[in-house]
Amino acid sequence: MNFIDEINYLKKVIEDELNKIFINKRGYQEKIFQAMKYSLFTGGKRIRPIFLLKSCEMVSGSYDEAIPFALALEMIHTYSLIHDDLPSMDDDDFRRGKPTNHKVFGEAIAILSGDGLLNLAYEIMTENTILLSKNKEDYYKFLLATKEISRASGVDGMIGGQVVDILSDSKSIDSLELEFMYRCKTAALIEAAVVSGGIIGGANEMEINNLRKYGNCIGLGYQIRDDILDIDEDKAINKTTYLSFNSFEEAKKKVESLSKEARESLEVFKDKNTTFLEDIAYYLINRNK
Amino acid sequence: MNFIDEINYLKKVIEDELNKIFINKRGYQEKIFQAMKYSLFTGGKRIRPIFLLKSCEMVSGSYDEAIPFALALEMIHTYSLIHDDLPSMDDDDFRRGKPTNHKVFGEAIAILSGDGLLNLAYEIMTENTILLSKNKEDYYKFLLATKEISRASGVDGMIGGQVVDILSDSKSIDSLELEFMYRCKTAALIEAAVVSGGIIGGANEMEINNLRKYGNCIGLGYQIRDDILDIDEDKAINKTTYLSFNSFEEAKKKVESLSKEARESLEVFKDKNTTFLEDIAYYLINRNK
Repeated sequence: MNFIDEINYLKKVIEDELNKIFINKRGYQEKIFQAMKYSLFTGGKRIRPIFLLKSCEMVSGSYDEAIPFALALEMIHTYSLIHDDLPSMDDDDFRRGKPTNHKVFGEAIAILSGDGLLNLAYEIMTENTILLSKNKEDYYKFLLATKEISRASGVDGMIGGQVVDILSDSKSIDSLELEFMYRCKTAALIEAAVVSGGIIGGANEMEINNLRKYGNCIGLGYQIRDDILDIDEDKAINKTTYLSFNSFEEAKKKVESLSKEARESLEVFKDKNTTFLEDIAYYLINRNK
Repeated sequence: MNFIDEINYLKKVIEDELNKIFINKRGYQEKIFQAMKYSLFTGGKRIRPIFLLKSCEMVSGSYDEAIPFALALEMIHTYSLIHDDLPSMDDDDFRRGKPTNHKVFGEAIAILSGDGLLNLAYEIMTENTILLSKNKEDYYKFLLATKEISRASGVDGMIGGQVVDILSDSKSIDSLELEFMYRCKTAALIEAAVVSGGIIGGANEMEINNLRKYGNCIGLGYQIRDDILDIDEDKAINKTTYLSFNSFEEAKKKVESLSKEARESLEVFKDKNTTFLEDIAYYLINRNK
């Protein structure tokens, strides 16, 4: 399968599994299931669950074990978008060309559907850890993956980055604080995807360290690539970005060196098939949207 | 120790432990730690963590194992209050006599500090499951407790109840839907407190079933007692409550019978010290605020 076919195949796998979760979800609170599904199915790239699945596969793990965690990660990413779009946060009316959750369901249901997705992510990880574990080592492995995802999602990860982002609207930040924000807001969850995939697949400590480096480089590169694309589109003029401290050429060079560093950190997996993770490193960093 | 002294002792234990979590929590995102602490320390009754600790103790479990889960439960309860108070939800300016989180920190930080508390609850449960488990049985026990808490907090529990509550502002609900709302919004988390405490303490299946019944009766009784107190205070005239379908006398009788049923479900623990759980059943249902 070529790279794009594989991406599309994985997206379908993930979306079919996400759909299954909502079968038979009825009751007086039905509105929230509609709101959660609405945002889960507004055409995301599914980058994070794809990273998790492929990282797990690379170290010879199985999709069956990785899928619940991949779904949880996508739910956490989606909840963060719903809350980010709220009027008191970024106040966005559209996302990926569709009205944002609060525009369709109202602010109260939007807040609750974000809460619901975050909580559901943990329900799924916890229940599947119980279901999938046969021995002490299994429990430990799945709990380490959950820990990785939970830390990356919390106040020392994604939420922390969002706090800095919000506060930076009313004060100037320096390049150190910007890097902190990028590492928390974007890189942390991508890193957690790759690392937790590796953990579930049975990677050893040295391998985990290299996956962590890979994820971190990709996450940071992805965000700086976003800054470059926003300049191309004339967006975000008043926001502090990587381009507030660096020239356009410097930004492009940084992205290329992060992409290279990411690919180099895969060299320890010389007896494995690293093609997909190499290709996606290249693709994300050269993408045009 | 008498009942009130014991409650105050347990509150202090819980608050000291909550405080410890925020020691050394600094960084660019410091504002969110302030916001999370602010709401965690606005004089809550700590009912849920107390239930968890005492239920665990009753079946001969240790506080050391129960405390992380008790803290997580209090964080989940607190996050739900922060989000409930938001302008697009109940729009409350004060809670327990103090300005609500969004009044002090703004809506964006309030939303994020709620998200942060919910996520932190799972970080704590996951990390402590890893730390406290020595064998397969330990992992299973702590994961079952986490599962219990996560289901009660989610779209089929507390969040689901809040959705029905929000939607009931613009439509009338019948007594069945009201009971669903009460069971989700209030009873689910109290039930989860008692049941997860029992699981951590090593209760057997029959004991768990009885703790579940106890928690459910207490939760429902607690909510109906709230309705009675609101009528006494002339609050909530336009809201559908238990008193929309029942007379004042019927409500009082219902609360008494739930309290009795709760105490009766403790009879299976005849060789244990059930005094505290009996007393609190009596106290919650006769409280005047």
